[in-house]
Amino acid sequence: MSGEFDLISRIAARVSPRSDVILGIGDDGAILHPPAGSELVIVTDTLNSGVHFPESTAAHDVGWKALAVNLSDLAAMGATPAWCTLALSLPSPDDAWLDACIDGFLALAEQHGIALVGGDTTRGPLSLTVTACGFVAAGTALRRDAAKVGDDIWVSGTLGDAAAALREVLQGKSCVDVLRSRLDRPTPRCALGQSLVGIAHACIDVSDGVLQDLGHVCAASGVGAEIRLDALPTSDALVALTVGAERWRLQSAGDDYELCFTADPSQRDALVTMSNTLGVRLTCVGRVVAGDGVHAFDANGREVRLQTSGYEHFA
Amino acid sequence: MSGEFDLISRIAARVSPRSDVILGIGDDGAILHPPAGSELVIVTDTLNSGVHFPESTAAHDVGWKALAVNLSDLAAMGATPAWCTLALSLPSPDDAWLDACIDGFLALAEQHGIALVGGDTTRGPLSLTVTACGFVAAGTALRRDAAKVGDDIWVSGTLGDAAAALREVLQGKSCVDVLRSRLDRPTPRCALGQSLVGIAHACIDVSDGVLQDLGHVCAASGVGAEIRLDALPTSDALVALTVGAERWRLQSAGDDYELCFTADPSQRDALVTMSNTLGVRLTCVGRVVAGDGVHAFDANGREVRLQTSGYEHFA
Repeated sequence: MSGEFDLISRIAARVSPRSDVILGIGDDGAILHPPAGSELVIVTDTLNSGVHFPESTAAHDVGWKALAVNLSDLAAMGATPAWCTLALSLPSPDDAWLDACIDGFLALAEQHGIALVGGDTTRGPLSLTVTACGFVAAGTALRRDAAKVGDDIWVSGTLGDAAAALREVLQGKSCVDVLRSRLDRPTPRCALGQSLVGIAHACIDVSDGVLQDLGHVCAASGVGAEIRLDALPTSDALVALTVGAERWRLQSAGDDYELCFTADPSQRDALVTMSNTLGVRLTCVGRVVAGDGVHAFDANGREVRLQTSGYEHFA
Repeated sequence: MSGEFDLISRIAARVSPRSDVILGIGDDGAILHPPAGSELVIVTDTLNSGVHFPESTAAHDVGWKALAVNLSDLAAMGATPAWCTLALSLPSPDDAWLDACIDGFLALAEQHGIALVGGDTTRGPLSLTVTACGFVAAGTALRRDAAKVGDDIWVSGTLGDAAAALREVLQGKSCVDVLRSRLDRPTPRCALGQSLVGIAHACIDVSDGVLQDLGHVCAASGVGAEIRLDALPTSDALVALTVGAERWRLQSAGDDYELCFTADPSQRDALVTMSNTLGVRLTCVGRVVAGDGVHAFDANGREVRLQTSGYEHFA
């Protein structure tokens, strides 16, 4: 079984270089060269075993998801990923588990050109905290506080798949791969986020549930939102599994890592073109209104109050 | 008891602003303005309850130490602190504990002018991961790989105090305040680290024990080191508590958060002046030699092999 420093060396040997990384893993800190004229975006998210992923999750997928949820935050800011750190607590050394975890982490990192430049490995309950940095041209980052009355509200991909998979797993049922992979290996919408700069007004990633996350946008922007629940984008697998309010509850439960953004109705054609170009489904699910709060309606225009409004730690 | 979002708002309301923070806590990410012509230094360190601090540690001190160990890494790179994030996992919500923890964190942050710009609060075993960013003029960061044969080896402050305090605490003994405060509220040597730029060759922070940390410098620089154990800087409190090899073991056990650096002997006068100016004790404890590894000697010039050579997770 390897010690801490062998472990660090083994990870360092597998990281892809970037020309703006002057010094990566192996010193007290990494030395990095920020691009001139850009603003730096920093995000951080923790995954704890049994809280953010089932204990049965494969090591590869734990590594993937730890980076994915952070890339999703960079995407929501419209930032281009650059560098990240990984702080990993493990109850006991396990080379095979760790190699698989790093495999998953680096596989996703390569897809997005983000370099792992440092981290910390400690003994403790299984937990991963990633901090990721990206860049935006000055003044162009997508924020929560920029929604305008009259904007369309859009959502990428489909909602509710991860929550459905989690429910099946927690009930000890088998779960179709297409749903399970949405829980274990979410797809951060980095290209979409970068493409939305200059087109979207407000943007947020759907991690805590679309209604709750949209509520943050409304609060920050001083507006309200109306959502048509039957318009929420739904995968075939979720259609096969659920109906009505049960489906809507799963679709507002969180863990989706899609982008929810607002844009002026004049951008509809541009967004349809963007959807086709990127191969990412984009669905208009409602509109920004004067007032406050998020109001959800059924197909008959009746307001619906769901039992759950998303995920909140310590709620 | 507050929920997650109340908690985040309460923390955000207490953070001091910096003019280069365009958007701080409260969005998917922070937006920051790096200074032109500088290189960015990123460090990250995790503290797990019962591993990195005794479970009896006061909440204020947990917050302080989580930032201090990261500031110590920035100091070792010669970087000026700028921004940080805090990822905090708590088993259950506890407003009083949390306020005290944030008090400690922000008290140290104010001392060093570092802004808390984001984070994550999750449910899980008590754990804090801080990622901190600082800046150095391009090409000037202090690194581990720059020690030269003939350099003096210097250590700041005193060594062994935190390890002595931990031993007393674990044995259920009372511990004098001067030692306990070295365990719970270490002093990161930020001003020293910045002053060493252009004067020191290699630098590292003494977190895992001076012999082990110096070993990393030797390995990275392709040199060896000779240390005089009787020259290790020792506090009066540690002198009162220990003698001989027992003292040396505590002094190489880690958790000191002092700087260990190498410098050409021609810098001795400059370092004495720096020590007086900053009010930080600096002690020459040995020299860099051709070869490899760290060799420790007693007052009679006999080589000493200590039973412990520092702290390693998973060793």
